[in-house]
Amino acid sequence: MDTLVTMNSAPRSAPAPVADIESRIAALVAQLVTATDLGNGTCSQVLGSVREQAITSSAGGKRLRASLALAAFNAGRLAQKAPEGTVDHEVSWAGAADEMLDIACAIEVFQTAALVHDDIIDDSDLRRGKPSAHRALSTLTHSAAIGRGLRLMIGDILATGSIDIVRNACASMPQKQAQSLLAAFTNMQREVSIGQILDLAIELSPLTDPQELTTASLNVFRWKTASYTTIAPIELGLIASGRDAASARAMALSIGEPLGIAFQLADDVLDVVGYSANTGKPVGGDIREGKRAVLLADTLQALPEQDRNDVIAMYESDSRSDDDVRHGIALMKSTGAVERSYERINQLWHETGRAIDSIDLDDEGKHILREVCRKFVSIAIPQGA
Amino acid sequence: MDTLVTMNSAPRSAPAPVADIESRIAALVAQLVTATDLGNGTCSQVLGSVREQAITSSAGGKRLRASLALAAFNAGRLAQKAPEGTVDHEVSWAGAADEMLDIACAIEVFQTAALVHDDIIDDSDLRRGKPSAHRALSTLTHSAAIGRGLRLMIGDILATGSIDIVRNACASMPQKQAQSLLAAFTNMQREVSIGQILDLAIELSPLTDPQELTTASLNVFRWKTASYTTIAPIELGLIASGRDAASARAMALSIGEPLGIAFQLADDVLDVVGYSANTGKPVGGDIREGKRAVLLADTLQALPEQDRNDVIAMYESDSRSDDDVRHGIALMKSTGAVERSYERINQLWHETGRAIDSIDLDDEGKHILREVCRKFVSIAIPQGA
Repeated sequence: MDTLVTMNSAPRSAPAPVADIESRIAALVAQLVTATDLGNGTCSQVLGSVREQAITSSAGGKRLRASLALAAFNAGRLAQKAPEGTVDHEVSWAGAADEMLDIACAIEVFQTAALVHDDIIDDSDLRRGKPSAHRALSTLTHSAAIGRGLRLMIGDILATGSIDIVRNACASMPQKQAQSLLAAFTNMQREVSIGQILDLAIELSPLTDPQELTTASLNVFRWKTASYTTIAPIELGLIASGRDAASARAMALSIGEPLGIAFQLADDVLDVVGYSANTGKPVGGDIREGKRAVLLADTLQALPEQDRNDVIAMYESDSRSDDDVRHGIALMKSTGAVERSYERINQLWHETGRAIDSIDLDDEGKHILREVCRKFVSIAIPQGA
Repeated sequence: MDTLVTMNSAPRSAPAPVADIESRIAALVAQLVTATDLGNGTCSQVLGSVREQAITSSAGGKRLRASLALAAFNAGRLAQKAPEGTVDHEVSWAGAADEMLDIACAIEVFQTAALVHDDIIDDSDLRRGKPSAHRALSTLTHSAAIGRGLRLMIGDILATGSIDIVRNACASMPQKQAQSLLAAFTNMQREVSIGQILDLAIELSPLTDPQELTTASLNVFRWKTASYTTIAPIELGLIASGRDAASARAMALSIGEPLGIAFQLADDVLDVVGYSANTGKPVGGDIREGKRAVLLADTLQALPEQDRNDVIAMYESDSRSDDDVRHGIALMKSTGAVERSYERINQLWHETGRAIDSIDLDDEGKHILREVCRKFVSIAIPQGA
């Protein structure tokens, strides 16, 4: 169950259950993939299928990012006694909850765009346990090339469209606030693309220096994951609640950067220790794909030279067998790399906790924020820690 | 020579020569592909190469779209006596010319984004006579897959970044005007993606109905080309000059829709009758790629059944030989399809001319606009027509 924290005392702002987020996203996405006056020929029919696929691709995530944005918004609005200088103006726009819901949905719509393009890069067959948009459209059109082109466009439309959703949501806000929200949102998209570039670049890095691999991999986690998973949701929620852009950014970085990196570390650990049913992906999938990240770096670091060279050869080969995957999982456990990831996650989670403690929110706001943040690392952090 | 129309009387707005546009675009793009604190490893080096490639990909277009946007802006500002209701407010923001230059550049930056993604879809080797970003990055990284991923990201960064350039340019404008400009710009991007979907869908349409092919192809020209080539530049220039969004849109559609379709028809004709040096592409390239558009539809329409079936078979085959291309060119000429395209271009150009005549600009404004519009069809329309 992934429900939002209930915030009875949040002024004028009812909690948005995940079902509200789902239906709102479907409505927003349907509007994006439309054209007028096309008649009733093949082109119109294909566009209809692409629209359906865009809606399907957008459905069914855990909506953690939207939840975090809404929590940050509500936490920010609870802070009645924020020090002079960090609150830019009185938040007075009507219907704030609706507008914040749309901004939260826009983050999720962008996520779908990023995942669709990610699946093109990785040539993936599955996403969220369903055929990726790419496979579905290739099947529909009987052409891998046309299917690939159509899914590329779904990604483009959802990325641009998510910005337009934010623009619309900001239309009645004070101009400076609207500008800050839009700037934060487009910067988020830019950072994710930079992160994707860094992730591709890791494929070109030598595996002989585990320390450099760790650094490079943590950079990827920061740019490709933390950017839109934790930093931007907090930043957008706080700006929408009335914080000025600079202090919202500083708070979002202090809380969200360690949290987002911890989230990705936990996701990677789950791929090794978890079960296919949890992630919709087969266990060891990252090893099969040859993913170069912290778990691999920590494994290489701990191995004697000959074993290390064997693992490097395995990762540099074009593909990895079932036996390779089993061997990789065993090594990640026996070398202590999995344990090291748990330690890293714990350290980062404590960093996030300290950041939440030290920002200028009142206690209820901090509580709201902490409980939603915890969901990002819940598979690795015991309840109550 | 592709210089902008000189507008001595345009208030506070010097003409921007193409060289200014080029250097501004290079500066804007360089800012987009950056990240801090990456250190000096492989990832940082790859990001540097991607930045160079993004700048290279952005250089050297004809800048017709930027020129049209600047012309519409200047024409709009010359209209001192516009009827009540179509001018939203006094244009009073300082430095308008700089801000309009950035908006014009943003259209060009978006075009590069669209071309980069288009080249991924078409798997193209050349663009503007240089290796496409895709080929250059695949060569650099010794991996087609990584090269493809990196160019996909260049497209994403430039598309999002172009929106951010507009947002920045609008920061000091009246809020309603800023909103209208951003909405027009994101709608432009959405329309191009829809057009790309329609273009891919044509591949799935039966070739046995030339009439449906003509309609579908004209829709592609409207959505994929006219949207950002002529409609949006006029719309953005007019809104920036102080027109309200609705009347700017109506004017832009009346002038830009026929003009943009004529532009694409002329581009397609040039591919058949022109020379490789003019386009940077080999003559007959559209036939070789099996492009399904108006020239093909008019050819099929004019052919007797048996010949028509031969041409259909040629287009439905996986590839076309040099002989096929020569045969296709000969048929497009002998059936009168090329001549028919010139007629279509002429009709559309007159439609554009009538639209310019009838809008509420003063004579100098109309003259400015007409002369820039003419450049879009200059290869097909005699000087002075």
